[in-house]
Amino acid sequence: MRDVAIVAAGMTKFGELWESSLRDLFVEAASEALANAHADHVDSIIVGNMSAGQFVGQEHLGPLLADHLGMAGTPAMRVESACASGGVALRTAFLEVASGASDLVLAAGVEKMNDGGDVTAILATAADQENEVYHGITFPGLYAMIARAHMGAHGTTEEDLSAVAVKNHHHGALNPRAQFHREVTLQEVMTSSMVAAPLRMLHCSPVSDGAAAVLVCPLDQAKRYTDRPVRIRASASATAPMALADRKDPAFLDAVALSAKRAYQMAGVGPGDVQVVEVHDCFTIAEICCIEALGLVECGKGRDAARSGLTALGGTVPVNTSGGLKSKGHPVGATGIAQAIEIFEQLRGESGPRQVPNAHLGLAQNMGGSGASSVVHILERV
Amino acid sequence: MRDVAIVAAGMTKFGELWESSLRDLFVEAASEALANAHADHVDSIIVGNMSAGQFVGQEHLGPLLADHLGMAGTPAMRVESACASGGVALRTAFLEVASGASDLVLAAGVEKMNDGGDVTAILATAADQENEVYHGITFPGLYAMIARAHMGAHGTTEEDLSAVAVKNHHHGALNPRAQFHREVTLQEVMTSSMVAAPLRMLHCSPVSDGAAAVLVCPLDQAKRYTDRPVRIRASASATAPMALADRKDPAFLDAVALSAKRAYQMAGVGPGDVQVVEVHDCFTIAEICCIEALGLVECGKGRDAARSGLTALGGTVPVNTSGGLKSKGHPVGATGIAQAIEIFEQLRGESGPRQVPNAHLGLAQNMGGSGASSVVHILERV
Repeated sequence: MRDVAIVAAGMTKFGELWESSLRDLFVEAASEALANAHADHVDSIIVGNMSAGQFVGQEHLGPLLADHLGMAGTPAMRVESACASGGVALRTAFLEVASGASDLVLAAGVEKMNDGGDVTAILATAADQENEVYHGITFPGLYAMIARAHMGAHGTTEEDLSAVAVKNHHHGALNPRAQFHREVTLQEVMTSSMVAAPLRMLHCSPVSDGAAAVLVCPLDQAKRYTDRPVRIRASASATAPMALADRKDPAFLDAVALSAKRAYQMAGVGPGDVQVVEVHDCFTIAEICCIEALGLVECGKGRDAARSGLTALGGTVPVNTSGGLKSKGHPVGATGIAQAIEIFEQLRGESGPRQVPNAHLGLAQNMGGSGASSVVHILERV
Repeated sequence: MRDVAIVAAGMTKFGELWESSLRDLFVEAASEALANAHADHVDSIIVGNMSAGQFVGQEHLGPLLADHLGMAGTPAMRVESACASGGVALRTAFLEVASGASDLVLAAGVEKMNDGGDVTAILATAADQENEVYHGITFPGLYAMIARAHMGAHGTTEEDLSAVAVKNHHHGALNPRAQFHREVTLQEVMTSSMVAAPLRMLHCSPVSDGAAAVLVCPLDQAKRYTDRPVRIRASASATAPMALADRKDPAFLDAVALSAKRAYQMAGVGPGDVQVVEVHDCFTIAEICCIEALGLVECGKGRDAARSGLTALGGTVPVNTSGGLKSKGHPVGATGIAQAIEIFEQLRGESGPRQVPNAHLGLAQNMGGSGASSVVHILERV
């Protein structure tokens, strides 16, 4: 396998972007990445997208978006793993470059969720239709059950769940591309509307539009495009039983742990070696479970991390410096690429007021559904 | 890049399979492939599927199907390029093995179309929603316009369009897994119900359920699984403008020609070197356009190929010996894998009454939408 690097990134602001179509968003993010690399063509395009078929009546995004980018002819396809679609897009691009088949691949993610569809019902198609959704549950309910399980097993409290939102809104307020730019207090989080007990509105990530794109090439060609490439030290994926009821412990995310184990092994590092981390906080309980499964804290100790400041900017391992899904926004197919972009920029020292000092190794973890799929990338400053 | 081989295949019968769910179909095909290779695990699973989200309310097929196959944990994702989803699944598996990242990958395709959805409307999400579908057109109309363009440019007749159906039903009658097992006469085709002039019902592929799966590994490990591996000599993909109106010549499929050119170059062969071919005959006009774009006949001469017997069993280059999409059926996400399986079996001498004598090099071409994406694989007996 060839060593692979990310050499450029582009992304839209995340938010309710009523004036932009899915294709507009993709073209904006992809064009920015291409301009940053001074590149006018690529060998292949991989688009991460969960459900444009349901959200905007459009499948077959590969050729459509290649065409609208002015690159008709270029091989282009969509990959999907629900909210981990961006992560699998980056992994697919990584493998295509690592194989030697392509020298410059555009890995992008895009989702247009605010366009009139029944968002909660569409997102629920990422859960087990026959064994979960048919009975009436959707994602807030599934994550509420995960939260209840974590509370029961580890004594996690509503304050713990809320502290994650406070931290991530603090980070997001420093990120010009985030959907929300305002801080929230513990009190505001804990008194926001109940969605699915114990999860309240401010424990949930928002409905978002947005796109993100990176350019991936062999490490030994990276200097053509940038003087600050970031190496992909590891790219690993795993799955777990789809239905919550089929899992040994609903409070422990096996797919996250397994994808992390594979990534640490591939990179030859451990959780103590990374200085900045993005995790999939679609609900605040998810961040707590993810940092445990990644080994950043002991199992059962995730509840303390945000409150103690461990995972805040200035803490030992800042988590979700971008604001996370909670505050930056969560256009589901774009999220995995946007996470990688946050780490890419942190490692290049481009994160401004969110900068983690001396970050040289970072990790991005992207998850599908209630944790049935997970992708982990470990990135390194070179 | 490592040399890559297909070592085993499995597929369901294609048809209206009301008693089987999408997951049942996948598990049946995948289990057959695994049993044929005496394998009980794989390193990765790639699922080609166009639109389970719309057809059966289920996205996130990677982990769902891995789980139902008894392989929760295994990396698994879905890839989509409309009706070329199976082809891109095989190409993705090929690249993953070629890269060295995985040693045994399951590439599968599945679609469950007969489950109550509005099939024509769902399929139309593979065309350009804003510039085509919004105005009322669906795929029979788009291919009717391609047929009209071909008729105008090359003198193609309704008899020519119909002869493709007669040939492919003849082939399909010999294929136990085909949806239709009956021959049709030119008269029957030419008097079947009009769908979108000049295309009649028997010029159109049917609505189908089904799944197909192959196992892919490095060529130098292939003997662990079979004594008759088939090498993937080339795997190439291309796109073209999505909307018909944006193409130079709607009667010429640029993406097919470009993907073929790349595949021939990768394999170091030309169209005269293949003995058996599967092409994407979603409508009979598509077969005529595809054999021209593949260079099997001169541009404009595709109209004569079926009538003259050139592309029939016993002809110079038998095309769609499986019955093609027309007669074998077209569960859209499964089609690209099923085409590869037909070539795989032909090269192994397993095609019974459909066997092409002494076939050692074959080609499978899979297409998305009205030809905006195309994938070509060239396979070789080793």
